[in-house]
Amino acid sequence: MKALVYHGPGAKSWDDVPDPKIIDSTDAIVRVDTTTLCGTDLHILKGDVPTVTEGRILGHEAVGTIVDVGAAVSSVKAGDRVLVSCVSACGRCRYCREGHYGQCLGGGGWILGNTIDGTQAELVRVPFADTSTYLLPAGLDDESALMLSDILPTAYEVGVVNGGISPGDVVAVVGAGPIGLAAVLAARLFSPAHVVAIDLVDSRLEAAKQFGADITINPSREDPAEQLATLTGGLGVDVAVEAVGVPGTFETCTRLVRPGGRVANVGVHGSPAVLHLEELWSRNVTITTGLVDTWSTPTLLKLVVSGQLEAKRFVTHRFDLADVLDAYDTFGRAADTGALKVVLTGASG
Amino acid sequence: MKALVYHGPGAKSWDDVPDPKIIDSTDAIVRVDTTTLCGTDLHILKGDVPTVTEGRILGHEAVGTIVDVGAAVSSVKAGDRVLVSCVSACGRCRYCREGHYGQCLGGGGWILGNTIDGTQAELVRVPFADTSTYLLPAGLDDESALMLSDILPTAYEVGVVNGGISPGDVVAVVGAGPIGLAAVLAARLFSPAHVVAIDLVDSRLEAAKQFGADITINPSREDPAEQLATLTGGLGVDVAVEAVGVPGTFETCTRLVRPGGRVANVGVHGSPAVLHLEELWSRNVTITTGLVDTWSTPTLLKLVVSGQLEAKRFVTHRFDLADVLDAYDTFGRAADTGALKVVLTGASG
Amino acid sequence: MKALVYHGPGAKSWDDVPDPKIIDSTDAIVRVDTTTLCGTDLHILKGDVPTVTEGRILGHEAVGTIVDVGAAVSSVKAGDRVLVSCVSACGRCRYCREGHYGQCLGGGGWILGNTIDGTQAELVRVPFADTSTYLLPAGLDDESALMLSDILPTAYEVGVVNGGISPGDVVAVVGAGPIGLAAVLAARLFSPAHVVAIDLVDSRLEAAKQFGADITINPSREDPAEQLATLTGGLGVDVAVEAVGVPGTFETCTRLVRPGGRVANVGVHGSPAVLHLEELWSRNVTITTGLVDTWSTPTLLKLVVSGQLEAKRFVTHRFDLADVLDAYDTFGRAADTGALKVVLTGASG
Amino acid sequence: MKALVYHGPGAKSWDDVPDPKIIDSTDAIVRVDTTTLCGTDLHILKGDVPTVTEGRILGHEAVGTIVDVGAAVSSVKAGDRVLVSCVSACGRCRYCREGHYGQCLGGGGWILGNTIDGTQAELVRVPFADTSTYLLPAGLDDESALMLSDILPTAYEVGVVNGGISPGDVVAVVGAGPIGLAAVLAARLFSPAHVVAIDLVDSRLEAAKQFGADITINPSREDPAEQLATLTGGLGVDVAVEAVGVPGTFETCTRLVRPGGRVANVGVHGSPAVLHLEELWSRNVTITTGLVDTWSTPTLLKLVVSGQLEAKRFVTHRFDLADVLDAYDTFGRAADTGALKVVLTGASG
Repeated sequence: MKALVYHGPGAKSWDDVPDPKIIDSTDAIVRVDTTTLCGTDLHILKGDVPTVTEGRILGHEAVGTIVDVGAAVSSVKAGDRVLVSCVSACGRCRYCREGHYGQCLGGGGWILGNTIDGTQAELVRVPFADTSTYLLPAGLDDESALMLSDILPTAYEVGVVNGGISPGDVVAVVGAGPIGLAAVLAARLFSPAHVVAIDLVDSRLEAAKQFGADITINPSREDPAEQLATLTGGLGVDVAVEAVGVPGTFETCTRLVRPGGRVANVGVHGSPAVLHLEELWSRNVTITTGLVDTWSTPTLLKLVVSGQLEAKRFVTHRFDLADVLDAYDTFGRAADTGALKVVLTGASG
Repeated sequence: MKALVYHGPGAKSWDDVPDPKIIDSTDAIVRVDTTTLCGTDLHILKGDVPTVTEGRILGHEAVGTIVDVGAAVSSVKAGDRVLVSCVSACGRCRYCREGHYGQCLGGGGWILGNTIDGTQAELVRVPFADTSTYLLPAGLDDESALMLSDILPTAYEVGVVNGGISPGDVVAVVGAGPIGLAAVLAARLFSPAHVVAIDLVDSRLEAAKQFGADITINPSREDPAEQLATLTGGLGVDVAVEAVGVPGTFETCTRLVRPGGRVANVGVHGSPAVLHLEELWSRNVTITTGLVDTWSTPTLLKLVVSGQLEAKRFVTHRFDLADVLDAYDTFGRAADTGALKVVLTGASG
Repeated sequence: MKALVYHGPGAKSWDDVPDPKIIDSTDAIVRVDTTTLCGTDLHILKGDVPTVTEGRILGHEAVGTIVDVGAAVSSVKAGDRVLVSCVSACGRCRYCREGHYGQCLGGGGWILGNTIDGTQAELVRVPFADTSTYLLPAGLDDESALMLSDILPTAYEVGVVNGGISPGDVVAVVGAGPIGLAAVLAARLFSPAHVVAIDLVDSRLEAAKQFGADITINPSREDPAEQLATLTGGLGVDVAVEAVGVPGTFETCTRLVRPGGRVANVGVHGSPAVLHLEELWSRNVTITTGLVDTWSTPTLLKLVVSGQLEAKRFVTHRFDLADVLDAYDTFGRAADTGALKVVLTGASG
Repeated sequence: MKALVYHGPGAKSWDDVPDPKIIDSTDAIVRVDTTTLCGTDLHILKGDVPTVTEGRILGHEAVGTIVDVGAAVSSVKAGDRVLVSCVSACGRCRYCREGHYGQCLGGGGWILGNTIDGTQAELVRVPFADTSTYLLPAGLDDESALMLSDILPTAYEVGVVNGGISPGDVVAVVGAGPIGLAAVLAARLFSPAHVVAIDLVDSRLEAAKQFGADITINPSREDPAEQLATLTGGLGVDVAVEAVGVPGTFETCTRLVRPGGRVANVGVHGSPAVLHLEELWSRNVTITTGLVDTWSTPTLLKLVVSGQLEAKRFVTHRFDLADVLDAYDTFGRAADTGALKVVLTGASG
């Protein structure tokens, strides 16, 4: 089959590789109908993710069709159309039993396109298929479903639910890239009074308005702390969602939040931040971090099917799977192309 | 009357001062039967708390007898024996309505011995008496009740409840001074499997065993991370309680906690800490901070009265109120004297 | 002044009565700008509410202007435009401290138009004004605010929050009268997948669609259990809200709910229901009851002001306050008139 | 092998039966080292449980040693000493993913000794072994572990956790049979102020004191409502746990609970109860029901191993497995014999 293979920092190609085979009795082989690229894939290509070794097929998001299953798989069968979750779950360990699949101790967690071959390929082997794939309801289109592999559960679980967003809240989302926009969209499920998007790039702020932000702040022109103090009677926001992944934006979040409020970190960080405990110790603040667990996938499927969540609006560009290198180019130049999510469709997708 | 007056950094004396009077109709005047000293009082005397100005009567903990009440006070009356909470609550503002009295916007919060005169005196004016004093049940001794002014609600709310300590948990309490010991004691209310006390001073670790720690670690001899990894199958503790207030111990807590665990900061910090987001971002960790709200005072009263919580065991030294300067000396040299809480008894106490 | 006075079962009139006066220092006198009628008022007039005695001025909902306040009132002052909550809160007792104002032990709870004179009058005395009135933000119209006196907090707290309605849920609301419609509307704040309205009257089901129900069932034509089994893969609904107040509809709710689901009773009941424990004991069902506490009033104000909740849509008829008898006639014949909430406006309103 | 076989109402015998074999790849065969009898077994023998057909081997509790596992089992292997849970969990369905194993839709739930052969035998086939057995830590004795098959998770989950028992609460447990005593014991994990046991049999009340009740009431001599009103300032208890399973005791619970309190039903009911909604509608009461899910098994194991929970104290009688008929006799005459849990030990146990 063909697949997008990582050949070390800066190097990738669309290669002929052997078809994947069932290894464990809990595996499924899935034909990839639709897949996409994630910011994490760009990090991998920079060489920033040491667990990814040369020769690895990238990608951890897909909608596809089951081709084969191992003897122990009982929930899905050949021919089923499924969502492949970015997180695999052994379903047996302590963390899986609590729904914290991202912390799986039994061989799961984020492994696709990381420690095992991933979804940017014509076929993919999915371990623990019973607990790592989701049957798609009839009538749900592939592109909407694909947004539930990673970006929407991440925004919903790590941003919105960890943040405890509640009706009437004022929510600040710092960073209006794809994951920040997903946080804006998902925040609206809980009817906050205001969703404030904060970003240095005006076109992103424009996008944030489309996704549900009613207030936007560009810190190059306005001081967010000042603006939000005005909005909140001097107190600060109820919830601040960090959706960038650098120390400065995290620190901004801890400054924007009101006493008793919450900071939900969604961004992937590469260096430490300063935590101003000399101010925060007495402010009853809660800070959360998290890798997505994808416990919310069944909920998000219901929300998309019932029209409560417009998952598909992230899709800005579409390519044939065979044109994955073009897709990377477009996605990698998002500032120019405006790419949020680029969808790759397989020959049979 | 006589009172302990702050005269600027390093200076205090037992002075003759005017008796306090009802100022607002919601005030009460309380005769101090028993009061105590807090680590915060030592900070004030070093000049570290800028809100405390010269001439201030110190102290924010007391058990006493109501002498007079303002016209609007309806819950207590002259002659009632009450607990004076370290936190005053207007009872009307947004935070008070949610039980977050420590963040009161209506003139309350920690004001006694801070922005208004405090309890280390023969009499004290207590604002918002209806919502800031608690009638003591018959049969509850003064010393036990006094521990509910500050140290026990702080440990219970900010350490134990914020930490989400649950049956079967492994809990690490970093710092075995008075507040750390209170966290050890209060943690046991929720039946953790293990309470691990960590401190550099062996005599404090001995005390921690008396208060309910079943494991003690002195980092000068053993690596806590290594010991706790052994105890927890390599995962780390469920809950780490910071009870010191310096960057290093906070950072220790974030290293000791398991994926999905919680760090509850109780310590009073004067400088920022480093937050290792490059490791923590993916570990689903929750970090909380908090000033005590004293919402738990009614609960703690029930626990002490019913024998579930041995509040009195903190009392190591007893003085007449008139000997408050001696009490400060003993409390200030806790490393030598072993003082945890020193109780001061008024002439009528 | 003029007021609507209850003169025993079936008897009421628009009488001249003495103006109310400050009795306690925590009282306010409020000029009624807008008030409304509640189904409970009709129950009172039938003689079904024994706490209401002859001579009582009815009404427990109002928006008005403060005319005078007692000496201890500090949050509002003459001239302020306020919401008068249907529940008064002493702010000091155990229940008030926990936000359960409806269970106030200090003289509050539902007292207006019940044990003391109410709001269907030109002036009303409001006890515990600091904790029982809410300052209205500029720009919020009276009619929207008036819906926050009773109907919306009742639906939100007792129906939606007690029911634990969550994103993706299937929610059944049994009864599509005013309170059922309010439950439908408020349920949408948490993004359920489906809100199913069930009622015997088609015009009410039509109204339910306007308020946000996407499915309606008339049990005179279709079996709700069968319809909902189809919708939910045979399991039943996640949450059933009882909004009628008779045994049969409550029992319907317990039959419609899935294992692990919740039944939130909002209806006011006059007789016992049968609880089929022989079926329910093993189904992990949670049943809640509740009088409104109005802890959610500040939240609901934010939701209305920010446009998340269209409070005003309940208003079907408008009268001058002096025409309150006509208003009762219209409201009492709701089946004919389609009345949901009738608004009465004072001369100065 | 030998097994206790049900032959229709009133009929059972210790029979020679074929050894169980692996049927599904997720099965394990377990040699029964220790098993016990449950009140439910007595119900079955009366013919009250229609899902149990003639020829069924009874029993749903065991500690044993793995003899063989199916190809898909990865968490346990031959030779492992395990707890066999009374509830089997497919680990894949919606309910299992949420930890509600008792409601498993994938073929699990309570099946052992019900719809498939059970544990009162020398060997037992355990389906879904990965998610239905628990490795026992070294040093944990069989008898303690055996109490975690059913009685303790039932009391903990359905009584204590559903009841929301919290520090300082007053808890009434109605019924002091084995499950009521387990509720008393488990309630103490959360440090209530008082645990009140209510039963008509004085010897049971004596036992309740041994298990942690500090107050006992025999309704044949004292009115529980009156006694508890005195204890609680007229309000009623915070939590009432129903541990009998008849309408009268359930109704008692709803009368004993304070406004805002909780009734946790643990008893197995055969007929409906009357729910006095005409009183309860306004009292903010929460009522829960539940079959045990056994999500708490890992927690309870930690509590027993760390000495927080004395599981073994339920064991009043011990028999060889071959003497199971004698054990039934002793257990069936509990009123005379004082039997709580009778332990049956296999030849190799």
